[in-house]
Amino acid sequence: MSRRPDKLVLNAFIYPGGHHEAAWRYSESEPHRIADISLYQEIARRAEAAKLDALFFADAPVLDANIRFSARHRLEPITTFAALAAVTEKIGFIATASTTYYEPYNLARLFASLDHISGGRVGWNIVTTSAEQAAKNFGLDRHPPHADRYRQGEEFVDVVTKLWDSWEDDAIIADKESGLFAETDRIHEIAHKGEFYSVQGPLNVNRSPQGRPVYVQAGSSEEGRGFAAKHAEAIFTAHQTIESARAFYSDIKARAAGFGRNPAHIKVLPGISPFIAGTEQEAIALEAEFNDLVQPAFSLNQLKRITGIDLSGLDIDKPLPRDLVEATRAQANSSRHQLVLDVIDRENPTIRQLIHRLAGGRGHKVIAGTPEQVADWIETWFIEGAADGFNVMPPWLTGGLDRFIDGVLPILRKRNLFREDYEGSTLRDHYGLPRPDSLFAERQAIRASA
Amino acid sequence: MSRRPDKLVLNAFIYPGGHHEAAWRYSESEPHRIADISLYQEIARRAEAAKLDALFFADAPVLDANIRFSARHRLEPITTFAALAAVTEKIGFIATASTTYYEPYNLARLFASLDHISGGRVGWNIVTTSAEQAAKNFGLDRHPPHADRYRQGEEFVDVVTKLWDSWEDDAIIADKESGLFAETDRIHEIAHKGEFYSVQGPLNVNRSPQGRPVYVQAGSSEEGRGFAAKHAEAIFTAHQTIESARAFYSDIKARAAGFGRNPAHIKVLPGISPFIAGTEQEAIALEAEFNDLVQPAFSLNQLKRITGIDLSGLDIDKPLPRDLVEATRAQANSSRHQLVLDVIDRENPTIRQLIHRLAGGRGHKVIAGTPEQVADWIETWFIEGAADGFNVMPPWLTGGLDRFIDGVLPILRKRNLFREDYEGSTLRDHYGLPRPDSLFAERQAIRASA
Repeated sequence: MSRRPDKLVLNAFIYPGGHHEAAWRYSESEPHRIADISLYQEIARRAEAAKLDALFFADAPVLDANIRFSARHRLEPITTFAALAAVTEKIGFIATASTTYYEPYNLARLFASLDHISGGRVGWNIVTTSAEQAAKNFGLDRHPPHADRYRQGEEFVDVVTKLWDSWEDDAIIADKESGLFAETDRIHEIAHKGEFYSVQGPLNVNRSPQGRPVYVQAGSSEEGRGFAAKHAEAIFTAHQTIESARAFYSDIKARAAGFGRNPAHIKVLPGISPFIAGTEQEAIALEAEFNDLVQPAFSLNQLKRITGIDLSGLDIDKPLPRDLVEATRAQANSSRHQLVLDVIDRENPTIRQLIHRLAGGRGHKVIAGTPEQVADWIETWFIEGAADGFNVMPPWLTGGLDRFIDGVLPILRKRNLFREDYEGSTLRDHYGLPRPDSLFAERQAIRASA
Repeated sequence: MSRRPDKLVLNAFIYPGGHHEAAWRYSESEPHRIADISLYQEIARRAEAAKLDALFFADAPVLDANIRFSARHRLEPITTFAALAAVTEKIGFIATASTTYYEPYNLARLFASLDHISGGRVGWNIVTTSAEQAAKNFGLDRHPPHADRYRQGEEFVDVVTKLWDSWEDDAIIADKESGLFAETDRIHEIAHKGEFYSVQGPLNVNRSPQGRPVYVQAGSSEEGRGFAAKHAEAIFTAHQTIESARAFYSDIKARAAGFGRNPAHIKVLPGISPFIAGTEQEAIALEAEFNDLVQPAFSLNQLKRITGIDLSGLDIDKPLPRDLVEATRAQANSSRHQLVLDVIDRENPTIRQLIHRLAGGRGHKVIAGTPEQVADWIETWFIEGAADGFNVMPPWLTGGLDRFIDGVLPILRKRNLFREDYEGSTLRDHYGLPRPDSLFAERQAIRASA
């Protein structure tokens, strides 16, 4: 099953309570439903009726300190998606999970199980976790450095891949007559011994519908890009300009080709958080209304966490001096820190303007416009080689998603840029990705033909 | 909401493919559906229509070596129950998870999330994992000794409890007008530092409907009983005779009282695997039909794993010498090993008879009889102080459960021993257990009144 390459990939990236930091205060928002599964079941059903590719949930195993003014608690994504899979049939689910703070055997089981439960609709957003405070929930004094986390992440992905492959597709015989349940030479110990992990295997879940969940990644650092080009089948990325997005797109596709991979099998998906209204002025006013709901104390905290700079003595209606931010670059080493520098370089904003920029998109592109304007923007980035599709981030729930589905999708369909219906039933089908063979089956085939 | 104490607790204990080791070979079984969520959704709906208290799934993070002749793979229980919660409204779900092989922060999140998703219908079967091979899936050369696992388990339960309590019930304000989302003095760092774990907290999931999932435990060793009496709200236990069950029941209730607990808040639930048919002869023939489906090679392996004895040179139609088994008692230190000794003492069975005994119940009581006989047996154990209810283990799926529901439940209802309908909506409601206050709320109340 393959998708025509001229169609967009469109995921709904769902932040509990809405993507905008102050979304919970918006009149239409229902903040008391943030841990209510029925909210996400409604969203999943609506997104599936609109034929979106997948829902995408971020995650980190720590509570953000900024809870006083913002909705920071959440349901755990894997359990949530199991409950959404039960009430849908086609839409995919991309769950974020950390390679730094999970045991590979446990995580491999959860995802293999979810892939079975959903009939092959699962993706794993592989993160090493950037939130430093997470370390203290797992017995570590210090969050491991970036490079160590990526080295560990590489090995983690290797282990989990081998576990998913440890049962060949045809291992189960279940012949009632003879009493043979499984061909044990098709079920493999992985006997992994590496720098970080020693895992014997096999997994205790048989091979799942997709063979392996879709590998999703979001790194933009040097290590992140290398990791993504090697492993990712979809890349979640943040860009404020088409130039930046095109450069990233070309770089990733070239790196992937360098690893011998088919660049079409890596979907580059920037984030976009659209404020949509009947006129451009209304859309801009809507965005401004959200920004005005942000508590300055909250945003200064956020900015301090990204930049490492204490901003409490500064006038928030004057620009943030670039050299202050530049000085903390090496120490922060994050894509959000780079974004702050980029915005300063382009716009020299006041601190308040910078706050609003960060609040709306959490680092991702925010646009305000009519459905036509949003569709134009999407088409331009798609046609001009900046994206294979997008992670659409509704500023608030559920209206922010409804406006995209009801307003923008019909225009994209009229332009023949988005599917009328699903052609397959797995997330790999929706993305046009191949179903991988088991590593162990390949080795057997090689042995057999030698 | 409290249950009248004269009503039985009845869980359906579901082993993938059925409780009998050879269930997958039975004509009615559907072994290709063992990883098919729709099978368990059917079972959950049927069990809920019958007003059973809960479904109960065993688990271990390792693949049993005996896969060649028996169905040993399975869906992971927590994800499975999330998918079952989505298609049911009242029935509870008890998921087994290991304190030896999980990170407490991760497990606390999964269960808190599942308790939200299910509207408060979750129990945690706390196990330290007895399968030695699990160690090799988690980087350990050796499975930790029994006493160490229990010490670690105690601390694990302590950490997870504090994490579940870290959000007080009224922490979320979500006042759109003022912009105050949460009262941060009602969200607590747990700052746990112990022998095994150092966990800062708070959890990133707000307090769940039940406050804490129901604590279930299955230990029968000295450490296990102490642990259960201290923490468990339901105990899953295996007994072949009413005398043994009554002694256990009295001991556990007395130990619980010794910890200052209300003995009524610990439900003692032996396992029972019933072969049910229209006449006693038919039921006995049905059990024999299942036993004849067991592969001798499989069972000798099982018996070897329990006893530590290589039986390959022995005549399986002669008795197993007691002294051989006695010699490995200290080394095995398991309830199943004790069961083998008990059966030898009572019945002096041939090895073949012993194999059949183990295959049917996996250590639990197997009875074969008419619905009336099974109901009589249940009533006797209940009335005579051997049980507060039972984990009913259908020998095969789904017919083994259907026969219990259609045949035995009407008789128990006629005798006023089982509910006509649910009185509440959480698992704590079904069991008549109190909803615990947050530890942190209690401390605050004490401070406030001091």
